[in-house]
Amino acid sequence: MSDTRQNIGWMWYPADLEIYHCMLQNFSREERDHAWPAFWKMDDWNKNVQFSRTVQLETPTEFLVTATGVGYVSVNGQKYPLGKPVACGPGKTDIAVAVGNMTGLPAIYVEGEVICSDSEWRVTNFIEEHPVGHSSLYRSREVSPNTIPYRSFTCQPVTVSPAVSAQGNNGVLYDFGRLVNGTVQLSMDANKQVTLCYGESDTEALDEKWCYYKEEHATIKTQPRRRAFRYIFIPNVGMDEVGLTAVHTYVDIPVKALFHCDDELVNRIFAVAVETFRQCSGLFFIDGVKRDRWVWSGDAYQSYVVNPYIFFDEEINKRTLLGLRGNLGIQQHLNTIVDYSLLWILGVEHEYQMTGDLEFLREIYPKVEDLMEMCMAQTDENGFIIGRPQDWIFVDWADIDKTGPISAEQVLFVRSYEVMAQLCERLGRDGSRYREMGQALKQKLNQFFWSPEKGAFIDSYQSGRNHVTRHANIFAVCFEVATPEQQKSILENVILNPDVPQITTPYFKFFELDTLCKLGYLDEVFKRMKEYWGGMLERGAVTFWEEFDPNQSGPEQYAMYDDPFGKSLCHAWGASPIYLLGRYFLGVRPTSPGYATYEVKPVTRFFNQLDCQVPVKDGVVRITYQDGVLDIKCP
Amino acid sequence: MSDTRQNIGWMWYPADLEIYHCMLQNFSREERDHAWPAFWKMDDWNKNVQFSRTVQLETPTEFLVTATGVGYVSVNGQKYPLGKPVACGPGKTDIAVAVGNMTGLPAIYVEGEVICSDSEWRVTNFIEEHPVGHSSLYRSREVSPNTIPYRSFTCQPVTVSPAVSAQGNNGVLYDFGRLVNGTVQLSMDANKQVTLCYGESDTEALDEKWCYYKEEHATIKTQPRRRAFRYIFIPNVGMDEVGLTAVHTYVDIPVKALFHCDDELVNRIFAVAVETFRQCSGLFFIDGVKRDRWVWSGDAYQSYVVNPYIFFDEEINKRTLLGLRGNLGIQQHLNTIVDYSLLWILGVEHEYQMTGDLEFLREIYPKVEDLMEMCMAQTDENGFIIGRPQDWIFVDWADIDKTGPISAEQVLFVRSYEVMAQLCERLGRDGSRYREMGQALKQKLNQFFWSPEKGAFIDSYQSGRNHVTRHANIFAVCFEVATPEQQKSILENVILNPDVPQITTPYFKFFELDTLCKLGYLDEVFKRMKEYWGGMLERGAVTFWEEFDPNQSGPEQYAMYDDPFGKSLCHAWGASPIYLLGRYFLGVRPTSPGYATYEVKPVTRFFNQLDCQVPVKDGVVRITYQDGVLDIKCP
Repeated sequence: MSDTRQNIGWMWYPADLEIYHCMLQNFSREERDHAWPAFWKMDDWNKNVQFSRTVQLETPTEFLVTATGVGYVSVNGQKYPLGKPVACGPGKTDIAVAVGNMTGLPAIYVEGEVICSDSEWRVTNFIEEHPVGHSSLYRSREVSPNTIPYRSFTCQPVTVSPAVSAQGNNGVLYDFGRLVNGTVQLSMDANKQVTLCYGESDTEALDEKWCYYKEEHATIKTQPRRRAFRYIFIPNVGMDEVGLTAVHTYVDIPVKALFHCDDELVNRIFAVAVETFRQCSGLFFIDGVKRDRWVWSGDAYQSYVVNPYIFFDEEINKRTLLGLRGNLGIQQHLNTIVDYSLLWILGVEHEYQMTGDLEFLREIYPKVEDLMEMCMAQTDENGFIIGRPQDWIFVDWADIDKTGPISAEQVLFVRSYEVMAQLCERLGRDGSRYREMGQALKQKLNQFFWSPEKGAFIDSYQSGRNHVTRHANIFAVCFEVATPEQQKSILENVILNPDVPQITTPYFKFFELDTLCKLGYLDEVFKRMKEYWGGMLERGAVTFWEEFDPNQSGPEQYAMYDDPFGKSLCHAWGASPIYLLGRYFLGVRPTSPGYATYEVKPVTRFFNQLDCQVPVKDGVVRITYQDGVLDIKCP
Repeated sequence: MSDTRQNIGWMWYPADLEIYHCMLQNFSREERDHAWPAFWKMDDWNKNVQFSRTVQLETPTEFLVTATGVGYVSVNGQKYPLGKPVACGPGKTDIAVAVGNMTGLPAIYVEGEVICSDSEWRVTNFIEEHPVGHSSLYRSREVSPNTIPYRSFTCQPVTVSPAVSAQGNNGVLYDFGRLVNGTVQLSMDANKQVTLCYGESDTEALDEKWCYYKEEHATIKTQPRRRAFRYIFIPNVGMDEVGLTAVHTYVDIPVKALFHCDDELVNRIFAVAVETFRQCSGLFFIDGVKRDRWVWSGDAYQSYVVNPYIFFDEEINKRTLLGLRGNLGIQQHLNTIVDYSLLWILGVEHEYQMTGDLEFLREIYPKVEDLMEMCMAQTDENGFIIGRPQDWIFVDWADIDKTGPISAEQVLFVRSYEVMAQLCERLGRDGSRYREMGQALKQKLNQFFWSPEKGAFIDSYQSGRNHVTRHANIFAVCFEVATPEQQKSILENVILNPDVPQITTPYFKFFELDTLCKLGYLDEVFKRMKEYWGGMLERGAVTFWEEFDPNQSGPEQYAMYDDPFGKSLCHAWGASPIYLLGRYFLGVRPTSPGYATYEVKPVTRFFNQLDCQVPVKDGVVRITYQDGVLDIKCP
């Protein structure tokens, strides 16, 4: 077979891979003794599709179609079985491949000197026809798109020590010294059965009752399912009775960023943030690796923002956007959350800013429009988006006045209109309707929610409580919905005002620090970053947590959601220092879509020395700073 | 466990069972060396659903949930694993069960003294909530709704004889004496490998190259897939080398009709029609058992009509209607065929006439409306329905002038409007819009398609060819769209006019004979029935064929669709004598929905003796006729 042409490997109906695997991901939650499939409607991948390709053959040739599913190959109307070489040509040759698969993704892999998997193939679900979907992860015939192409390495425990569980049982605690997301293999007497108690913390592993994951009746033949843990406690065994080996599994997305400065704490923060982010980046950006392992649109939005400063991986963004979104004909907000729908729309714009991929934008646009139209159908007489009874107005885990339409949603909605207008313009469509509606909404937002008295946006105007929280105000600065005057007022009256309740989640801390940086408060951010993330490192964190309160210690620091070990100790949104350092301290940002032009403006006053690398679309920018000399090398 | 309350067994999201199994059915086509999944978009069943039930408990109780999939049981918000007894009560108890299943139907089976599977359960797909779906076929925990509850019996060959294949190879031909739809088991030397050539006819089995199904390299361990055959030929073996046993598998739907008269040919026609119809009635009404085994809406319509005269099985009608239709948000005609969409709507009305099941009508109505609205969106300025480029205007395998809008479709469309109006009225909705549009369309139909000169409907007015075929005219009489005057004219100028090309398919012969009966031409029908169906019996038919031409003989009689064995020898539409005899000759018909009232008017002049049974909704009517005395016993 000739290798001169690019073989794109497995091919499927576009977005089907993402929809299939996203459902698999959202069905993988394990909650102690039961499973917990996500509580929203998940769209389905197509079960029968037909691929097609026309080729003008000068000489006879042969090709082989491998498929996941049942069906046939047709050449000029004559049908042949899948999985056997088919001869054809010369002359005009119409090839079609029909594949049906009830239980997985119908996909094909075509090999041949002339006819092979390439971007000329199209595919129909018998309603619409599109160019085929494919992925760099599935270029090899041996790697079925119905599997996740994990790489793995083996981990040995770094310490094995006698320990007593919270329930008072003696046993052995194994510390792997790092977070493992994978399986374990036991070596012990062939007839022996033990219980494995997993923990992200030693406290969790040592709690036989409340630890999240437990493998009971484990023998040397047990192959436990993939789980995240650093510690494993085995009760009722002696020190040399059981050997444990862990296998960490991951989707290999290369890290392109480097950060080294003379402040060792900042270096460690960056390194642990990278570890955290890699753990939470599989086929999709997920929230955390222990619980709940679902794909959440709000969490994912922040990961899109971090991605260019660590991986610059264009495919994981696209997979996550497509998997979250599902099919045309949307009936429900993403993850049931109104703000998560709007953040998805903003995510599409971010993706375009990062990659400049107009082809992807063209393919996904109908789904953006479909979602935006659903949102527009859920508005009141002022144009404010209001949740239906079945919708979740999340914004943050915070005490927000959610009476009637609320300001945080409207700010995102204004931004969504602007994004829609921009996307339209990029595709040569008329986006003026969206622009006008966005402007009208912004005017109503200011009329109803801006309190001149408080110099800030209030949560709700309907309740009459004039309650001010940071959230809407942070969104308004962050997404440039507030005027420069409003921004100044918000800074003073909200962000720097200690009387306005503090943000407590790293999710919203991300937006807050971003806002502070945008407003030039880098010193404040640098200080907070070292305190907050440094605080977790002081507690021995090997990955960053879902939430951190410096005032907590002991077992209480692991509790969340009314669960003693409800807190995830490896959560994607904990990785924001990657973005903050790359974007504001190293000063790298695109100034036109796809980094066709970009800015590199490091702020050196925080450092004596820098030796860093920040990805840009097709390479990395190298930034060094030594003895007062800044050196920037662009690719 | 108490047996005093009805346990409805497995429960699922309504229509999901049907959608799941219909897809499985439509993926089961085997075409010599390749598979052939159906070429239309098949809707998906829900992959994650949540069941719920609130109960006021006087004392504590326990229940057990068995599920197909992963998930949990929740009692007043507290989660428990599936498959283990859950204790609850006393007091108000909210039970929820979440189940996700990527590869099959998510369903549950609940057992307990107080809490069990019953019709109080509701289920949501997180978009809509409905009463649960259930079926009498899945009342036992051991019978998973992801399987087909086949019954089976063993068949031995009635003759085993040496034979020579069309390719000149010696071997052995096994004749099972009946059509088997199932598997075969070999007994022979453990190391031996043979080839099985299947045939509905001996001619087919003896053609090693062209027989539809072939099992190569079969050993005693081979478990061939389910296939339909009467004969098996094994080449290159001697008479006593290989023993064959067949296992016939079927869904058990009891036959409630009996027909015995003094005309043995008619008795045999009825018996073979019953055998044919049973073979083609599984979870769904399919077209035929050999090829293509798909669920076709047009074929199914005729089966709905036959059903009350043989099984009076209400569930197979509903399963077929639901499986064919799929989900709300339809984008494609059923089986891609415009007339099949319209016949589906007529099928819903027929189902209601047969069963009087208002609850089912209420549940399915939104899907009827959704389909009708799609049809109404595909009309021209006169209101005529016209196929889009991707749609198939089938009507029949006949030479119909299909230029522009065609009359046969408009006749069905007029009838669909009337049906919509009736369905609305039954549900207490306003159907006047449909009634008015139907009347307007009927007026346009007469204006554009009725030729006073020809005294008949022409196929197309746009072509200017004024071509008359039987089809539109038969539909117009059959569905009472033609006025009594038009009916008379059609009878004379079309149906009894030998210059208008004859109907060649049993599919349309069904409508033609129905029309002739409606117009009182029973003698003609009786004669034709004995000739046509009797002709197949003369050829040794054990089931009735997809098509029969008395002028053909030898191998050519098995050919169809340009394939030497393309003709199905067991085809549901061949079973129409069941309907014709029950409806017109025994004269049983409902005169109000659900047989609340019905008519029994046997036409005795064709018989000297009758000993028959015709089902009515909740029993059977017994009709005997002997020595000029007619006796009718109603249940």
